[in-house]
Amino acid sequence: MLWYLGYVVLFVDDFEGTMDFYAKRVGLPVRLRADGYAEFAVEGAKFALLARSRVGELVGEKSGGKAVPGPDTGAVTVLVEDVDRVFRELSGRGVQFLGAPADRAWGQRSVYFRDPEGHLIEIATNLPRPERMGV
Amino acid sequence: MLWYLGYVVLFVDDFEGTMDFYAKRVGLPVRLRADGYAEFAVEGAKFALLARSRVGELVGEKSGGKAVPGPDTGAVTVLVEDVDRVFRELSGRGVQFLGAPADRAWGQRSVYFRDPEGHLIEIATNLPRPERMGV
Amino acid sequence: MLWYLGYVVLFVDDFEGTMDFYAKRVGLPVRLRADGYAEFAVEGAKFALLARSRVGELVGEKSGGKAVPGPDTGAVTVLVEDVDRVFRELSGRGVQFLGAPADRAWGQRSVYFRDPEGHLIEIATNLPRPERMGV
Amino acid sequence: MLWYLGYVVLFVDDFEGTMDFYAKRVGLPVRLRADGYAEFAVEGAKFALLARSRVGELVGEKSGGKAVPGPDTGAVTVLVEDVDRVFRELSGRGVQFLGAPADRAWGQRSVYFRDPEGHLIEIATNLPRPERMGV
Repeated sequence: MLWYLGYVVLFVDDFEGTMDFYAKRVGLPVRLRADGYAEFAVEGAKFALLARSRVGELVGEKSGGKAVPGPDTGAVTVLVEDVDRVFRELSGRGVQFLGAPADRAWGQRSVYFRDPEGHLIEIATNLPRPERMGV
Repeated sequence: MLWYLGYVVLFVDDFEGTMDFYAKRVGLPVRLRADGYAEFAVEGAKFALLARSRVGELVGEKSGGKAVPGPDTGAVTVLVEDVDRVFRELSGRGVQFLGAPADRAWGQRSVYFRDPEGHLIEIATNLPRPERMGV
Repeated sequence: MLWYLGYVVLFVDDFEGTMDFYAKRVGLPVRLRADGYAEFAVEGAKFALLARSRVGELVGEKSGGKAVPGPDTGAVTVLVEDVDRVFRELSGRGVQFLGAPADRAWGQRSVYFRDPEGHLIEIATNLPRPERMGV
Repeated sequence: MLWYLGYVVLFVDDFEGTMDFYAKRVGLPVRLRADGYAEFAVEGAKFALLARSRVGELVGEKSGGKAVPGPDTGAVTVLVEDVDRVFRELSGRGVQFLGAPADRAWGQRSVYFRDPEGHLIEIATNLPRPERMGV
């Protein structure tokens, strides 16, 4: 069995506005853009936005109307070289974080923000950790 | 700038039940398990579940109660060797898909399902595509 | 610190011949092709060939002439869904393996082959392994 | 077809010495260590060293003796946040580079070094590039 997590696609009501948020405030270059779909310059899995108006044709359901505020359904974690520096840069461009970077018990230092449509994004840097003995 | 999409973490109310769904119906081996957190054997970005009761401590907010049905906030796409075979296997174990695998204009053949907490997962196989001339 | 292993580039004397080997015998679609450079459709890190005649301009050294037989300098491991099936398919197309697939102590079943220029490639499938308790 | 480039394993005669080079001069934390095998903290594909004395048991061949100088067989490219900063840091710790970082026609700025056993490693940073229109 081989499963490869290849894409994270966030659905958005305001496609242009959210594009702007990621491209200008977060500062991610746009790598690919098609009709209602955009991919940003992130390594590893592809990170993309999709206009909610196109979701119905893909999942074969009515799209269900505008998103409603509710509990978070999940988070995407992006590793960066220095979470504190990214926190300062993005804060300076108007990204509002949920608190400040903090060391986490699982070995990362991280901080969360929400995009304009409420998706939860975690920016993290791996903390040094002890090596593990192998097989 | 270097951003690496390292983790997709789905928040769930019923941690044990959703674990069971991914481990037994979907058939993903559990690779790592900690208190209210589990990672599955997926290549590329880590794919994990987190009990919603633990979300508040991470994002510094009240967790906001039980998830409510609403429009999808996004989708995670997992590449597999043969989407039709995976579709048959998972259907046979009780996973309910939103339709059948279909060729997509962007060069993949894919199908969607929802986990018991409503997260939207796409299983996809790359279709042959013409090579591109480079720089 | 964030380092992302993005590319494996194999240097080859016979660019067209080795392209043919990977494209037709191994069966990897070519995704991108430029002057003396080709990338194959492999997920994760990019997998590419580079004509040895172009190496000098990159590393700022004389290329040092034709490769000479010698001990292997390393191996690239590619994960596949089913190593035994890939072994049979590639053998049927004339790829000569160094033995047959075997279970390895570190939790994979794998087999090695050499491309026409001597690079060592391992094809592997993860064996089921016990879950690990986390932090 | 799904192939995932999962590992790059460099074979080395002097396992401890090369470990030291990558851990102390290059500055990569060791993540996993077993008998004659070590993995470093690199995202994406695993990056590892293997003592050449263990190669024979894996490929089913005599290991062929000590490595001899010859033309490079390939290169591994690691993406970093800022290649110039990494170049300065590693130079300061005694890593000898083949020249200085330079902009490359394919959209990266990069520099090469050799480890003590002669493996060629490229450190690169993506240059800004124009977005591409998709399907």
